[in-house]
Amino acid sequence: MNTAIILAGGVGSRMGVDRPKQYLIVNEKPIIVYCLEIFQNHKNVDKICIVVSDEWKSYVIENIKKYGIDKVCGYASAGKTRQHSIYNGLKCVDKNAPDTDVVIIHDAARPLVSDKIIDDCIIGAIEDDGAMPVISVKDTIYQSKDGKSIDNLLKRSELFAGQAPESFDFKKYLDIHNSVTDDEISATAGSSEIAYRHNMNIRLVEGSERNFKITTIEDLETFETIVNG
Amino acid sequence: MNTAIILAGGVGSRMGVDRPKQYLIVNEKPIIVYCLEIFQNHKNVDKICIVVSDEWKSYVIENIKKYGIDKVCGYASAGKTRQHSIYNGLKCVDKNAPDTDVVIIHDAARPLVSDKIIDDCIIGAIEDDGAMPVISVKDTIYQSKDGKSIDNLLKRSELFAGQAPESFDFKKYLDIHNSVTDDEISATAGSSEIAYRHNMNIRLVEGSERNFKITTIEDLETFETIVNG
Repeated sequence: MNTAIILAGGVGSRMGVDRPKQYLIVNEKPIIVYCLEIFQNHKNVDKICIVVSDEWKSYVIENIKKYGIDKVCGYASAGKTRQHSIYNGLKCVDKNAPDTDVVIIHDAARPLVSDKIIDDCIIGAIEDDGAMPVISVKDTIYQSKDGKSIDNLLKRSELFAGQAPESFDFKKYLDIHNSVTDDEISATAGSSEIAYRHNMNIRLVEGSERNFKITTIEDLETFETIVNG
Repeated sequence: MNTAIILAGGVGSRMGVDRPKQYLIVNEKPIIVYCLEIFQNHKNVDKICIVVSDEWKSYVIENIKKYGIDKVCGYASAGKTRQHSIYNGLKCVDKNAPDTDVVIIHDAARPLVSDKIIDDCIIGAIEDDGAMPVISVKDTIYQSKDGKSIDNLLKRSELFAGQAPESFDFKKYLDIHNSVTDDEISATAGSSEIAYRHNMNIRLVEGSERNFKITTIEDLETFETIVNG
């Protein structure tokens, strides 16, 4: 069984608007619903667990009813970091969908993920231990410990920018979180990072520029343009 | 003396329009002119050398006359790679502005560079051997030799995306280009890379999100929005 964790716990917005980005309305529908519909309609996703802050929970429940998102099996509270939110989501899955083999962790603010990326991630988590969509890096990236002078050159062809969803063997990934310190969870910048560090083999699959995270006003405008064809 | 090399040799466009991005017209003025005006009006830039493809040279000459860009001291042909274009620009500076101490290499398609960034780069090239504006990296970046599985984790706080202008001690930087093979020039992804590899000390200075390179339609729209206040 494959269960999606949708991360909707963020409460801030860099856009200077009155609500977190995942709850902004585009064509009368909140962005999170666009995201949830993709997982609702995906034939290889069985259940959905939503990580949501307390103040937005009733709003989310109202909307999943309105839009018929009936795969939702539980809600988890937002944590102090993204990775803590993921841990809360994992515990929610363990409680409400304990037969889960593969967990697929996605951002509510990435509402344009394709069915193929989700499929590739599920297959990667079954055949390896996990999978993450990546896109190539366009900038020339330099490494510097102090931010003042270059310490090391990096080959652009060997660099990949991680996207979501990241998918994992559920039991292995949960076990890692149960075994590490709170500090290690806090220090985790990417969900695949903690998996890689604990010897899970993470497959890189082809991501997409379209699968961007809505963060800025420009991102929102791009999303609106795409939605309106 | 400080001389700018403006790279305008690109002939392609990812935008599906009829001309390279640096020659697109915004409010009746080509993008390259916005860029040239910044260096024309900068008190610490003495001369400008333009790298331009043969087919656009007369267009550029016409426009520098029209807009009174009188610091231009020469033109160089576009090379087969960006770094070859830079080398052509360096030879042009050597011929037409041989007293140059610091060379400042900028992209014609980055028309929103600030005076402060240019100053910081010039100071960096005087006090160290060179300087490059950088911005922090937002994505989580993973290293993979084969693009199939993660080989190494990179600390986001130690990663910096290079922008332009890159500035260098002119003589040292030219000497490197005169001494290396054509293959090494071809293999250079960033102008500071070849300098760093040959033991020049490159200072990182604070870049800006505004100092983006116009590459996509969205970039062009952002530039238009900014220009129109």
